[in-house]
Amino acid sequence: MDEKFAEIRQMLEKDFFASENGIILTSITLGGATAEMNVTTSHLNGAGTVQGGAIFTLADFCFAAAANSYGVPTVSLDSNISFIKAVSSGKLLATAVELYRRRTVAGYSVRITTEEGELVSVFNSTAYIKNK
Amino acid sequence: MDEKFAEIRQMLEKDFFASENGIILTSITLGGATAEMNVTTSHLNGAGTVQGGAIFTLADFCFAAAANSYGVPTVSLDSNISFIKAVSSGKLLATAVELYRRRTVAGYSVRITTEEGELVSVFNSTAYIKNK
Amino acid sequence: MDEKFAEIRQMLEKDFFASENGIILTSITLGGATAEMNVTTSHLNGAGTVQGGAIFTLADFCFAAAANSYGVPTVSLDSNISFIKAVSSGKLLATAVELYRRRTVAGYSVRITTEEGELVSVFNSTAYIKNK
Amino acid sequence: MDEKFAEIRQMLEKDFFASENGIILTSITLGGATAEMNVTTSHLNGAGTVQGGAIFTLADFCFAAAANSYGVPTVSLDSNISFIKAVSSGKLLATAVELYRRRTVAGYSVRITTEEGELVSVFNSTAYIKNK
Repeated sequence: MDEKFAEIRQMLEKDFFASENGIILTSITLGGATAEMNVTTSHLNGAGTVQGGAIFTLADFCFAAAANSYGVPTVSLDSNISFIKAVSSGKLLATAVELYRRRTVAGYSVRITTEEGELVSVFNSTAYIKNK
Repeated sequence: MDEKFAEIRQMLEKDFFASENGIILTSITLGGATAEMNVTTSHLNGAGTVQGGAIFTLADFCFAAAANSYGVPTVSLDSNISFIKAVSSGKLLATAVELYRRRTVAGYSVRITTEEGELVSVFNSTAYIKNK
Repeated sequence: MDEKFAEIRQMLEKDFFASENGIILTSITLGGATAEMNVTTSHLNGAGTVQGGAIFTLADFCFAAAANSYGVPTVSLDSNISFIKAVSSGKLLATAVELYRRRTVAGYSVRITTEEGELVSVFNSTAYIKNK
Repeated sequence: MDEKFAEIRQMLEKDFFASENGIILTSITLGGATAEMNVTTSHLNGAGTVQGGAIFTLADFCFAAAANSYGVPTVSLDSNISFIKAVSSGKLLATAVELYRRRTVAGYSVRITTEEGELVSVFNSTAYIKNK
């Protein structure tokens, strides 16, 4: 494990909502991250497809890893998510990239795909950097 | 129970992601709904506050109840959520209202508050109506 | 003219993009504002309906009036707009309300309607308050 | 001029709101487009920077070119825009890319930069495809 990101990794391990819903951090870099979620029946909605909230949570968790990678607390102000493809099984992969980072505000974009690379969801978040 | 909404209520009961995360439908009308979630440690993120995904899921579930109240399958295309106040305990209340409903597209707004009425989050969703 | 809002009114009069496109401030209160735009052929897109940018500009101008009504520079970080009804003529009316205002971040919602009250567009903006 | 896009180019030339505000289409491909705007004092707001509506209009025009490139009328349902950098002069460049295109719904992302490549704004739009 990269020592550099030990602190942020410890914080993310205490994200009970993500971990209890089967979301796993797979990598972290400065301003970026990847995460994944194995779809189970617990993630499904009444229509039998993955609930929008499960997809959002995967995206938000991946965003949080990228946004907090600098070691400065950074919280989401506003997020937008598009639901492109309904899925019912398999593994979902999330990749977060940084769009910009200024002194107090930053923007991140997260793409969610299937293992076959089909686009499931696009998420964009504007975040506030809590400088001391 | 209102017979009129029996079908949509049955569908919402099968929303495993919502129910396993403690989200409960409290009322449904034509184009509107209310839902609630008792905050537990399972909803918290690494910063000790309710994870954005848990709040989104509550909002999305409440939206789905309102949007599907006409008995026609209606799915979210695009949602926007603002995170206004961080909370760590108590009960969160969601109220969904219809902004407009045309032939194939509809819009809903959901407000999330604490039991004391403090605004926690505002959610807006554009939905697609799956007419046969 | 209310002396209280003289400074913000002067700033808004120098909004050349809004004024050259026929947008007029009609009222301002603390955290709220109304504005209007008489649709002309200059506002139309290639499909013969009011361009999304013209509607956005009306909404953004009305938001700016409400957000700056406290006399503290407040700028938009992120805005979301839904286009509900296409219009080709008549007058468009905008009403901005404050959703919340914290120390550094605030949220405003703007509704755009026809003179007959039909909903044309809903706009939501997250703004940053530039405290000295 | 590419004959293939002659029809959509003719439609875009009749976008009076874009053309009267100095916005020019610079290229069009299937699912993509570029456009530009030379900043003048007519684009400025009361703070002396380019009005959010002018930036949105540039993005929306570029999106419309990309979304209508297939020759099927495609309209914006919902757009989200982040304002990253305030600018007061120079040329703004817009580039639209297609995120996905299904039977009735499509998504496009537009980046606005300065000539030096600095990111000014990110715009995402969910569009409805008007099949006959």
